Amino acid sequence: MEISEPEVIRDKSLMRSWSRSRRSNGQTLALVPTMGFLHEGHLSLIRTAKSLADLTVVSIYINPGQFAPSEDLSTYPSDLAGDLRKLSDAGVSAVFCPSELYISAPGNDFGGHLGAVNGERVGASCLEDGGSGHETWITVERLEKGMCGTSRPVFFRGVATVVAKLFNIVEPDVAVFGKKDYQQWQIICRMVRDLDFAIKVIGSDIVREADGLAMSSRNVHLSPEQREKALSISRSLSKAKLAAEKGLKNCQHLKDLVRQTISEADGKIDYVEIVEQQGLKPVEEISCPVVLCVAAWFGNVRLIDNLEID
Amino acid sequence: MEISEPEVIRDKSLMRSWSRSRRSNGQTLALVPTMGFLHEGHLSLIRTAKSLADLTVVSIYINPGQFAPSEDLSTYPSDLAGDLRKLSDAGVSAVFCPSELYISAPGNDFGGHLGAVNGERVGASCLEDGGSGHETWITVERLEKGMCGTSRPVFFRGVATVVAKLFNIVEPDVAVFGKKDYQQWQIICRMVRDLDFAIKVIGSDIVREADGLAMSSRNVHLSPEQREKALSISRSLSKAKLAAEKGLKNCQHLKDLVRQTISEADGKIDYVEIVEQQGLKPVEEISCPVVLCVAAWFGNVRLIDNLEID
Repeated sequence: MEISEPEVIRDKSLMRSWSRSRRSNGQTLALVPTMGFLHEGHLSLIRTAKSLADLTVVSIYINPGQFAPSEDLSTYPSDLAGDLRKLSDAGVSAVFCPSELYISAPGNDFGGHLGAVNGERVGASCLEDGGSGHETWITVERLEKGMCGTSRPVFFRGVATVVAKLFNIVEPDVAVFGKKDYQQWQIICRMVRDLDFAIKVIGSDIVREADGLAMSSRNVHLSPEQREKALSISRSLSKAKLAAEKGLKNCQHLKDLVRQTISEADGKIDYVEIVEQQGLKPVEEISCPVVLCVAAWFGNVRLIDNLEID
Repeated sequence: MEISEPEVIRDKSLMRSWSRSRRSNGQTLALVPTMGFLHEGHLSLIRTAKSLADLTVVSIYINPGQFAPSEDLSTYPSDLAGDLRKLSDAGVSAVFCPSELYISAPGNDFGGHLGAVNGERVGASCLEDGGSGHETWITVERLEKGMCGTSRPVFFRGVATVVAKLFNIVEPDVAVFGKKDYQQWQIICRMVRDLDFAIKVIGSDIVREADGLAMSSRNVHLSPEQREKALSISRSLSKAKLAAEKGLKNCQHLKDLVRQTISEADGKIDYVEIVEQQGLKPVEEISCPVVLCVAAWFGNVRLIDNLEID
């Protein structure tokens, strides 16, 4: 029997040479980028990845570049030992878990973020340190507007930038992203097309708990009561989809249905949008494949979810 | 004798497969990105490239993404037949000259540019066409500020973006850039470091005409009289460097010397700056290796030049 223990790689150049030696043997490589604290949703991405390539690499990196100063970088859950056990069981080939991915200049605060980065405090602004810090950002201009781009101002440039870094380090043939982060998935697809990355991007369906809650690393922060109330998100989406399938095409009415259901469960709505599946343009009447996207707060926990209506 | 006729490649995927088949044979690849209308300066970059890798690829592409609507995209000189002869003589392995590098959506105006792109008119804004046009841009935030970044607002994001595209298509081991575009060179270096491109960036020294004029494709637009006057640029730089070497460390005085020399020859100064060689931070007193950078107009022609003071 083949030994399936994944190789744990912490260094960029080792990661690249690991990848290059496999690819030069003709083996194909799939990458699943994650921020760790893995759940069944991630494992589903990994199964997809394994079906698409000879070898699967999972990266684990809590990316400070995508958190605004007000956001939950310092409380983002992590459990590397647990993650490595799960990845071993899942039979991945390598785990890339760098301690830091950005240049180690005395000061990478990404324009104000002075929180903990993977457990370590980072210094002052790169504008004050002689300018040797990270300063290159990738923006996908129109797709970043709206939805999560409105409430999380640096999120998507941080995601696009770190994903480009991971692509350049791991050099995979395929990369798998969860469609739970629908806008993120579309942004990565667009970036890959626009910048000519030689990588195929695959979106993998949302995985839900038995009761409908979309799986998320952040669910761990929900109290039992909040968790119960948070079910209103997936319930509201299903309700709206059913209404659409029964003939309700007016998006304002559909969105009101969602808002009402979540508000009744004490959820604080961040946004409810119905947009084209590709291009993410808001629509007023459903006449093409759309996706109904929601973000809502339950206590201090911000959850997102979506449902495609074809 | 080996046949040295370069392969002329017009298609992205053919370019990538050409590169991959060579690299999988263990051959190393150098890329020299150009906008064509090649002169001795480019040929010098190619000689550098040939000394660094087994195979040299030269790309020729007038990048609409780096020209603002007011700029000289439509009059930028081109001579593909002449370029190919020169590249054949220079013994390069392949010439990548795509007719279009950006997505061929009905509308890539890059936020307002409606000029001709490689001879063809481009359409309306991608915001009006359903949003399928190019919309991913790379910015190198601090290094883009100042100098050419001030007078050419979209220039560096256009350069960084098209260079990333070329890197992803050609997949070279080394890329050679001219230090005449000093700020551009530093921006590419920073982008490669920050985004973890597996590419070594080399800066190649400015090549000058016998009388000192820095070689540029735009020199062809100078009248004989303007050309004569434009010599004031290189003369002013040499004069200032000599003064610095003789002990004049005050940058305001050195810059005044440059301004005066160029103005006396009817040149219209765009900027004169003395900045750190790495990091491009303006300095007031010379106490570290700096570079003296100039941009000036002679008639309708904007010329740039620089001189390192170590």
